[in-house]
Amino acid sequence: MSSSPKIRVGIVGASGETGTSIINGLLEAGKFDLIALTRPASMTKPINLTLQSQGVTLRPRDLTSPQPTLVAALSDIEILISSVPPMDLLSQLPLITAAKTAGVRRFLPCAYAPVIPPGGVHIIIDEKEKVYQAMKQARLPFTVVDIGWWYQLCVPRVPSGRTDGYQLTGEGNTIVGDGAMPSALTDLRDVGRYVARIVVDERTVNRYVFVWNEVWSQREIFGAVERVLGEEVERKFVGEEELREKLEGMGDAIDLPTIATKVPVQYHLSLYIRGDNQPENAEYLGYLLGKDLYPDFEARSFDAYLKEVMDGTAKEIYKGRYEDLKKMFRK
Amino acid sequence: MSSSPKIRVGIVGASGETGTSIINGLLEAGKFDLIALTRPASMTKPINLTLQSQGVTLRPRDLTSPQPTLVAALSDIEILISSVPPMDLLSQLPLITAAKTAGVRRFLPCAYAPVIPPGGVHIIIDEKEKVYQAMKQARLPFTVVDIGWWYQLCVPRVPSGRTDGYQLTGEGNTIVGDGAMPSALTDLRDVGRYVARIVVDERTVNRYVFVWNEVWSQREIFGAVERVLGEEVERKFVGEEELREKLEGMGDAIDLPTIATKVPVQYHLSLYIRGDNQPENAEYLGYLLGKDLYPDFEARSFDAYLKEVMDGTAKEIYKGRYEDLKKMFRK
Repeated sequence: MSSSPKIRVGIVGASGETGTSIINGLLEAGKFDLIALTRPASMTKPINLTLQSQGVTLRPRDLTSPQPTLVAALSDIEILISSVPPMDLLSQLPLITAAKTAGVRRFLPCAYAPVIPPGGVHIIIDEKEKVYQAMKQARLPFTVVDIGWWYQLCVPRVPSGRTDGYQLTGEGNTIVGDGAMPSALTDLRDVGRYVARIVVDERTVNRYVFVWNEVWSQREIFGAVERVLGEEVERKFVGEEELREKLEGMGDAIDLPTIATKVPVQYHLSLYIRGDNQPENAEYLGYLLGKDLYPDFEARSFDAYLKEVMDGTAKEIYKGRYEDLKKMFRK
Repeated sequence: MSSSPKIRVGIVGASGETGTSIINGLLEAGKFDLIALTRPASMTKPINLTLQSQGVTLRPRDLTSPQPTLVAALSDIEILISSVPPMDLLSQLPLITAAKTAGVRRFLPCAYAPVIPPGGVHIIIDEKEKVYQAMKQARLPFTVVDIGWWYQLCVPRVPSGRTDGYQLTGEGNTIVGDGAMPSALTDLRDVGRYVARIVVDERTVNRYVFVWNEVWSQREIFGAVERVLGEEVERKFVGEEELREKLEGMGDAIDLPTIATKVPVQYHLSLYIRGDNQPENAEYLGYLLGKDLYPDFEARSFDAYLKEVMDGTAKEIYKGRYEDLKKMFRK
């Protein structure tokens, strides 16, 4: 056991899916003091009381507070990690200003996305790009961590219904194009374990890092599900043109209706037609690659995840959340 | 002398100030076959006939041609270098598509700017960013080369009038803030010499590179002009607030009136208030640095340039061009 002092890490959005993975990964590493910057109204929510019981300090913060209040809330934070919902991405702008003033040593903006270049391919990526631009204009030391697509979003429906709990969208059985495009996947639970490595790694200061566990095509995924679960999986093929037609007339607002309708289509076009979400493309775009940085990292395999699904032990994501969004997807 | 085959380089915008520097730098290196992609209507202009006499091949191209025509014009080009006027930046979009199809090995988009982060600081930088985003979406191998601020734009007016020919703007005697902010400078004539190194350097593939000769503050520049030319130089001090007030109500159009009014103010704010144009900031933003890559590069000194100005041998930039713009600046 090392007796060196722990590194103080502040987390905004600790109770979300990515935030939970990050908290767990940092706790497992055992070298961080964790401070969850929590909305005052949420301090007594069960999920935050759970965090507290795990040893995470809850500190009230309100991203709409005046700068001096925000700066005070960050004054002892060495590393600041943000993981906020898509609708709240720009709430990071005052946080960035305050983090610079407070002398935060490294900021991880809310990224944790597939590899997708900005500039009209995906509205959420473009919204994140605005945050990165503000961060760079402030010259705040940073690391952007992207992670591909979650195992937890990959499992199609099967006739027995036993994967229904794992569906966030109603498009779980859609195969885009010929289904052969490779795409990088990560187990959501490994995201925090990667982050625990990255935030103490001097090679990743002011860099983009892409971490992923395995590369799979949709065809391969559907085949694996059939193999592991022993059930035939329906395949609904959709082509590029059909996807592009769906996009026509959709607006650019970062709101629930747009996210529910436009975002899945833009993901399909980017991941499976453009083929953006691949390690080679990340390298082209200037990312450092997780496999180069951490060759010893023990990544959960997709096969192992499917076995958990079969056993019924896999955890459903967004459980009890985004019910409105799920309803829209299932329309 | 090496007998290895020469590398075929296509240049769009060969007759501009940066284009001329690039042509000269590549010719001096002696290992490139140069093809100037020239507007059909400009093939017989004196500057293009001069290029031809220097051994540059003129090839007609029209950036508004259909893609197959553009692709054919690029079919034998290994490295494509673009240097177009600010108003024509988006004309590079079809060029990028064609270059990808034609298999161009490396594209240098029109950059050659100071270090300025995109996202609202400077309209020309944001216009260039659109081009970089399209280039990355096309996965075209690239190098972005930024070069700081030209020596040739640094010399203020002196009472004798002998530097009047070196004024592009009417703001030559303006000192922003306290005039102490460091800013990276390059002799325009060295830009092409740097490019000749960069385009054959595998370390710079898919990277941003920042090259500069020397770092000077405005105070230091004005002092050097007084010292070398032996004349007192007028100093018109302007503050951040006054500059910000000037920006109010200005539009975002990439046209001559906006460029004439907004661009100089945005440069002043970025270079001398924000302090963007510094090697340390370039490094923070992910650029490779010329001083690291090419420690043996013999860069012209600013003192030597000022002696040329004193001797009357320094070359006036934009001579006989942009007369409308100069008139607007001098209003």
